[in-house]
Amino acid sequence: MKIELAKSYGFCYGVKRAIKIAEEHPNSATFGPIIHNIDEINRLKSDFNVDLVEDVKSALKFDTIVVRTHGITKENLKTLKKHGKKVINATCPYVTTPQQIVQSMSKEGYTIVIFGDKNHPEIKGVSSYSVDKERTFIVLSENDLIGLPLGTKVAIVAQTTRKPEDFKKIVAALSVRVAELRVFNTICNATFENQDAAAQLAKKADVMIVIGGKHSSNTKQLFNICKSICKDSYHIENESELKKEWFDGKKLCGISAGASTPDWIIKKVVDKIEKLTN
Amino acid sequence: MKIELAKSYGFCYGVKRAIKIAEEHPNSATFGPIIHNIDEINRLKSDFNVDLVEDVKSALKFDTIVVRTHGITKENLKTLKKHGKKVINATCPYVTTPQQIVQSMSKEGYTIVIFGDKNHPEIKGVSSYSVDKERTFIVLSENDLIGLPLGTKVAIVAQTTRKPEDFKKIVAALSVRVAELRVFNTICNATFENQDAAAQLAKKADVMIVIGGKHSSNTKQLFNICKSICKDSYHIENESELKKEWFDGKKLCGISAGASTPDWIIKKVVDKIEKLTN
Repeated sequence: MKIELAKSYGFCYGVKRAIKIAEEHPNSATFGPIIHNIDEINRLKSDFNVDLVEDVKSALKFDTIVVRTHGITKENLKTLKKHGKKVINATCPYVTTPQQIVQSMSKEGYTIVIFGDKNHPEIKGVSSYSVDKERTFIVLSENDLIGLPLGTKVAIVAQTTRKPEDFKKIVAALSVRVAELRVFNTICNATFENQDAAAQLAKKADVMIVIGGKHSSNTKQLFNICKSICKDSYHIENESELKKEWFDGKKLCGISAGASTPDWIIKKVVDKIEKLTN
Repeated sequence: MKIELAKSYGFCYGVKRAIKIAEEHPNSATFGPIIHNIDEINRLKSDFNVDLVEDVKSALKFDTIVVRTHGITKENLKTLKKHGKKVINATCPYVTTPQQIVQSMSKEGYTIVIFGDKNHPEIKGVSSYSVDKERTFIVLSENDLIGLPLGTKVAIVAQTTRKPEDFKKIVAALSVRVAELRVFNTICNATFENQDAAAQLAKKADVMIVIGGKHSSNTKQLFNICKSICKDSYHIENESELKKEWFDGKKLCGISAGASTPDWIIKKVVDKIEKLTN
């Protein structure tokens, strides 16, 4: 049986880059989890002695702090620097962009609208770059815009992982409400690239294996897409769940993985499938 | 019977202003019709000797040229000034705004998208202000955007009389297609103010009279709105069409008028209704 990986799968560019940066700075701590995958965090600790801290106070116990993919607030960054810490910036460039836009647009007097979840670390970081907090609004839908004192000039950015369709609705509502609107499409298409690639592969595969956390929403979405195209699709967390009979009589096995699934877990799955089918 | 005018009706601010400017400049010519109403154009000619010219060549025969509400192209303006003509600018301020935006945004390197009709004089004027004609696109719907080489930075303006709902669709489509979009909502709400006011009045009126050209699309729209609310609604061009029986047993007669209907025509209608019902 042939095994084929989707053209795009697993970690996005920003996460791969952040992990490489963490590996290059042993004995440091990442500010916030670099990835929502406990196995990968444990690997960084055991192989590179890279710790994980969740707040400034804990971070100050380390000399070198790696700022994780989602970024941190401007205030936290300032505190770390004030204490003479070596700050290694592993913020995804796609997150740095909205941070910079929010800073410069708020300086230019634009009201800031951020499409995203106010409790998400990325959005906490991005919104912290506004120089006018009272004129910075975080919304999740067009309904959240109702009654907001937006003024006449608005700039909007989006959380990198949001859906373009939802962004469009908010932009459309704003476009006829204010005299000038500056739209910065800061949505990253990595998620959609994984989905498109999985769908392409599912079309020709006889069996599809989707690897990722059972609670990972992006993995579940990948699995649903595959299942709708290839009925013999399976969602697993690791190689131990594989069953020999899934591959009986199949010619092509396609493989995709969620955005938090490390390559070494994917490799173990591939090795196990090869073992089962040879 | 009581007669009540809608809170907003007839000429918009820009047209009223342009007619006043024309009246203040007797023996001039307007470049293009100041209003799509032949009676009003004839009145300006007979009372103020204000002529009407349709092109630069004819305009050059006059010393004073009044630029009409829709504006003219930058090139025509230049020609008139080069020939030492006195140019009186009666361009509606709501049209001057998109002209200026298109000029400054195209100078800043933004691709220009204009939502409007490329054959309409307003849009011919607005688009002429772009310094990069090859990167200036005039569209009527989101479908017109397909395949356009938009680049990464786009600025969009709209013809003043377009519908906000259509503008929203085009803005939404652009918002996820380019990295940066600058949206300038240059739609004028005068049309909608007339419609809203007519609808309000139609709710309480026993009979509605809507005055305006039989081919005027905005008058037809006004009439349809009134008719859907008050079944005894009538669309007339002038007082000669009024019929006494329309008002039999009615207590309140509401009146609205299209955007090209001069006040003196409306006054004649009101006078005639009073005469018929007293």
